[in-house]
Formats: sequence, C-alpha cells, structure tokens
Amino acid sequence: MSSESNTHFTVLKTDPASAARRCELRTRHGTVQTPVFMPVGTQGTVKSLTPTQVKETGAQIILGNTYHLNLRPGPQTVRALGGLHKFMDWDGPILTDSGGFQVFSLSKLRKITEAGITFASHLDGARITLTPRSCLDIQSALGSDIAMVLDICPPFPATKRDVADANRTTLRWANEFLCHATDDGFLAAGHHVFGIVQGGIYDDLRRECAEALSQMDFPGYAIGGVSVGEPEPEMLQQVAASTPFLPHFKPRYVMGVGTPPQLLKMIALGADMFDCVMPTRLARHGTAFTPDGTINIKNEKFKLDEAPLVEGLDNYTCRRFSRAYLRHLYVAGEMLSSTLLSIHNIHFFQDLMRQAREHLEAGDFTPWSREWIARYEAGEAARKQRR
Amino acid sequence: MSSESNTHFTVLKTDPASAARRCELRTRHGTVQTPVFMPVGTQGTVKSLTPTQVKETGAQIILGNTYHLNLRPGPQTVRALGGLHKFMDWDGPILTDSGGFQVFSLSKLRKITEAGITFASHLDGARITLTPRSCLDIQSALGSDIAMVLDICPPFPATKRDVADANRTTLRWANEFLCHATDDGFLAAGHHVFGIVQGGIYDDLRRECAEALSQMDFPGYAIGGVSVGEPEPEMLQQVAASTPFLPHFKPRYVMGVGTPPQLLKMIALGADMFDCVMPTRLARHGTAFTPDGTINIKNEKFKLDEAPLVEGLDNYTCRRFSRAYLRHLYVAGEMLSSTLLSIHNIHFFQDLMRQAREHLEAGDFTPWSREWIARYEAGEAARKQRR
Repeated sequence: MSSESNTHFTVLKTDPASAARRCELRTRHGTVQTPVFMPVGTQGTVKSLTPTQVKETGAQIILGNTYHLNLRPGPQTVRALGGLHKFMDWDGPILTDSGGFQVFSLSKLRKITEAGITFASHLDGARITLTPRSCLDIQSALGSDIAMVLDICPPFPATKRDVADANRTTLRWANEFLCHATDDGFLAAGHHVFGIVQGGIYDDLRRECAEALSQMDFPGYAIGGVSVGEPEPEMLQQVAASTPFLPHFKPRYVMGVGTPPQLLKMIALGADMFDCVMPTRLARHGTAFTPDGTINIKNEKFKLDEAPLVEGLDNYTCRRFSRAYLRHLYVAGEMLSSTLLSIHNIHFFQDLMRQAREHLEAGDFTPWSREWIARYEAGEAARKQRR
Repeated sequence: MSSESNTHFTVLKTDPASAARRCELRTRHGTVQTPVFMPVGTQGTVKSLTPTQVKETGAQIILGNTYHLNLRPGPQTVRALGGLHKFMDWDGPILTDSGGFQVFSLSKLRKITEAGITFASHLDGARITLTPRSCLDIQSALGSDIAMVLDICPPFPATKRDVADANRTTLRWANEFLCHATDDGFLAAGHHVFGIVQGGIYDDLRRECAEALSQMDFPGYAIGGVSVGEPEPEMLQQVAASTPFLPHFKPRYVMGVGTPPQLLKMIALGADMFDCVMPTRLARHGTAFTPDGTINIKNEKFKLDEAPLVEGLDNYTCRRFSRAYLRHLYVAGEMLSSTLLSIHNIHFFQDLMRQAREHLEAGDFTPWSREWIARYEAGEAARKQRR
C-alpha cells in the first residue's frame, strides 16, 4: 500500500470512486485502524458489557462522556484513581467528547456567555460552568487520548443568523482550547485535540467553519451537530459540505451517528471515525442488526427459532445462542438479554467497519458498499411494509 | 483417600470431628465434587451473567426453577429447542426444583387436593395444576439431571397437625413421582430424582419423613422448608433432625440456603449440596461478600478506595476493578454493577466450598471452619454495631 503521512495519522489508501480512505491513527494507547466505529461508554462503562466483552466485539477505541463523568464520579476522583483507562480497565484508546452536546440535550437550565456555558446538573440541579479552560481540565484529568473542544451545537432547525452567531463562539472557544492544550503540554504529551465543525444545514457556514478550524492546525477534526433530528439527506449533506474543506492528512470524525448504511455513506464522503449509542440502546430494546436490516427479538415468530441472530457471524451471541433463547430472555426481562444483544450489535458494527477497511484495501469499496446498503435498505423497507 | 460408593455417589472422606463429608456425585452431565454450592438460574439464566462467566466462577452445577420455566417459555418449547442445557448453553449438570416452593411464595390463589396443587400464574393468572405426574413431565422435558419430587412446604410457623398432614401428602406424592420416574425410564436413563424431607421445626416429623423416604430408595435426598423465615437455630435444627436418618451413601441437599457461615454449619451436620439466590440477589443491591462479612459498595467510604473487593481473590471482578469503580457503577445505576458483583459473590461461595473440600481432604475441616465462621461473624457483628 502506498501511504501518505502526518506524524500521528497515515492515509494508507484512497478509494478510486469516492472520497473514502483507509487510514491509521496513532494515540497514546495504541493505533486505530480506520474507518472505525467507537462504542459509547457514557458513564465509564459500555452499558451492560465488561471491558473484556467490549474488546471481544473487535472494538479498538471507545468514547467516554465528559458531561456524565464530570458530574459523577467527577474528574478529580477519576484522576486520583489513575485516570479513566485504569478506572474502567480499558487499555485501548479513549476519545472524550466536550460535554457540550449533553448540556443541550439533558440540561434544562442553561446560559451561554462569551466565557462558556452555565447549566444545571440533570442529577441534582447543581450549577456548573463549562469553559474551554475547564473543559480541557476535565478531559485532561480523565486522561483522554482524544479530547474534543468545547463547542455550541445549535438545534435543528435553527436560523442561519443563529447558527452563524454560534459558529463565531465555537471558533473562538476552539482557538482558546487549543492554546491551553499547547501551553499545558497536553498536545506535546501525545494527547490529541479535535476541532469541531458546526454550521447546521448551511453549506457556506460549514465551509467557513471547516476552513477556519483547518487554519488552527488541530490533530484532527470532528463534524458535529449532524445527529440533532434532521432527515438523512440533510445529515449527509452536512458531512459532504464539511469534509472537502478539512485537511487530507488529518482524521475526520462524525459525531453521534448513525445506522449501518449511513456509516458507509459517510465513509464515501471522506469520514474516518464514528460513535453512536444506537447498537447498545437498541439492544436494550430488543432490536438486533442483521445484513437485512433490524429485527425485534420479541417477535412471536422467533419463539422456536433455533438459528443465531445472524448465521455465520463470529461473536459470542451468534456462536452460542438461538433467537428463541434471546427472545425468552427479553420477554422474561432478564438483564442478560441486554448484554447478549449489545455484544451482537457492537460486533455487527465492528464487523461492518472491518469489511469496509478490507474493501478499501482491495480497491472495491464503492461497489461493495452500494450492494451492502441496497440489501440492508431493502430488508428495512420490507419490514416496515409488513407492520 | 479411602472411599465408599454407591453407583452414582461416592463418599471420599468423612470429617473426624463432625458429620461433614467430602463426596462425588455423578450425573449425565459430569461429576460434581461436594460440598457444592449451586447458583440459581431461575428463568434459564443466572441473572446478569453469561454461562461463560458462571463457569469462570468455578460453578460446577446450576439450578433451574421449574415453576418459572413452566410458565415461560414452557417445557414443550424448551424440549423442542433441545432441552434446557442447549437452550441456555450450559453443558454442566442442572438440578431443577419441583416448582412447589414458588407456588407457595409467588402465587396467591392456590388449592391443594389429594391429586396435586392448583394455582394461578403470577404472570397472567392462568390456572395451572401441578401433580407428581405433570411435575415429572416438566422436569423431563427440561432435561433435568437432578429432578425434585413435588412436595408441600408448610409456612413458618405452622401447627404440628398441619405439618403432619402436609407430610402425609408429601410422602404419597414422593412415592408416586418415583414410580412414574421408574416406569418412564427416567431413572434408567441416568437422571436422578431426589425426595424431599419436610416436617417443619418438629424433630419427630423430620425423622419420620426422612425414614419413610429412605425406604423408597431415592438416588438422593433434599431437606426442604428450612428457608421460610425461621431464625438460624431453628434452621440448623431442621437439618440436624433430618441428616442422621438419611442414607449415608446418598447425597443430601439443603434447599434455598444460606449465608456462608450457615453453609459451613450445615456441612458439619452432614449436608452436601446447597443453592441460594443470595449471592446474585444481594449483588443487585450492591452487597458484596468478604471473609469479614458483607459490605455495601454504595458506602461513601469506598469513593476513592483502590483496593479490590477482596485482596488476592482470583475472580474477574477482584483481578480488574477497584471498590471505587464498583461503587461508581452502582451509584450510576449501571447494569455492569450487577454483573461484576454477581461474579464476585458467586465466586466467593464457590471458593468457600473449594476450601471446605480441601480441608475435608486434609482432615482439619472442623477447626478451619470454626475459625472461618468466627472471623466472618465478628465482621458482621462489628458492621451492625457501626450502623
């Protein structure tokens, strides 16, 4: 493979028919092969799984939520206990978000000033202010391998004026965050900081933001605000409007999305990294991913079904349990249902990314991906029609 | 070791200072080393654990609840799916209870006749009748390695007359169950059936029942009705009043108990097998077992405690996680808390039984056991005083 390199990031191969690429991202806790999907460990645990089970799904890197960990157990507690890696016993890379997104989605009372965001904890109402300074300090205390700048994530829909105003603050905070990370020696110690492209559904604002952030020379870039309730075409357009204006030799991470076909479509637009609670959240509601779309395990038709969730898929759940048993666990309200479906769903996402990487290496990502998406979407459409 | 044998059961060694013994019980799914503690897999799963995790605790044999599995998913469903072992992917021995105990503890509406027990399902109110015939058929459909006879478990307290009346029915049903198990070829196929000694707190009724059941030549015997709310001295007295009148060369199983010291005390009275939901139920409430009694992990004092639950204990939870992390998981309401505490608690019981077996082999069970109990009970007493 020919390769083009930055110190911490190598583009190993690009797709001849799309903007997709096969890359490597080096972190303090090991190298990540991209495209990559990161399971979400909201409160210092990927819900219902041991770190051993998470690793067995093929996960290379996980995400920790700064908002949640800041409230409980608190960054100083995590630091005193040796950092998030040791605390939760995950020795691979950890990316932490900035907490900004949860402030907007979980906290009712909030106020944005030039200095930062003040909000009330959803746990006990305590007033907390996040600034670029404190946001870095929290992620530093956690020992994050990849920290995210504090940003403002406008809702969907929002007026162009509101989004433009928010972007000015986002850019100022990004710059301030990066200066602190430099001055503190956080970057020099090998931690990465990603800037976040905002701009809502306005292509020119996305471009402006991406170009301004590119000037700041971050180790990587995220595309934020694409999972706030907009339809899929708008979601993809926001990625398409951002990636061309980001540096080629830096990783690109689309935050908080998406379905398996959406991941492949965003890879084709040049995205490298993804995180989403979907595999674990849907698992807890009895939904499992298959190459023909999702199935709900509580369906009566699985009562005597001896087949695994997906024939031939090499994960603990598919190797050892029938759909009938998984249905029984779900119907009986057993916790093991969440565990086994989460193992399967996360592995399904990991396996999809593995296939994407292999097809990028083989040079046939685009035709393979089109076929994969067509089968999945046909299955989903048929399932919706039957309802 | 000198040994004395029955076809399926060998007494390898007896304790010089008590009625304790070190034995082996052979089943269709392997040999069980006793004394043994059986984790409870109520609904076809040991709550919050994969079968791999259950096995890693050192568990040799688990228990399935006939009452629950009969209601959901139903014995015919389990049979169609290859039996309970295959259904839940547990390849070791499984003991199933008769369902009688749950009828009394979970179902409101119930009626006992000469033929059996009629009750209303706690799930949907459906009227169900358990007879010795149907009770065997259900356990046979599940593929139980050790089936229990249908019995009547009187509440505590109950009058002597009521207990004596119940015992007459229990004995008649035991005989009927054993005849069916013989006629069906269930015993000849290597499945075991255990009779159940009842008699409440009345020593003479316990003895009568034990002697009558011994005449029937069951492959093993259970002592039932000792976990229905009586204080510890009464609980132990019920075991002490039963074991001397049971055959030496047959296994003895005390149903549904107890704390770690109670297990050791019952072993000294000649008991071989135990089951209890305590390790998993307390785990879900944040309680962990230690050699110095139980601790509740939600206690503020564990907030920065880097030590494992029990120093040096070789289980997944103790090897990899601090008390501080386990406290965080519990306080944050994370499911992984139940999983990790269940792993620890079940392993703690398994490890205690392993030590008991080793000290029986070494001939010093009684002094070791006394010391173990003293330390545990001193810790519990100190903890209660601090509250």
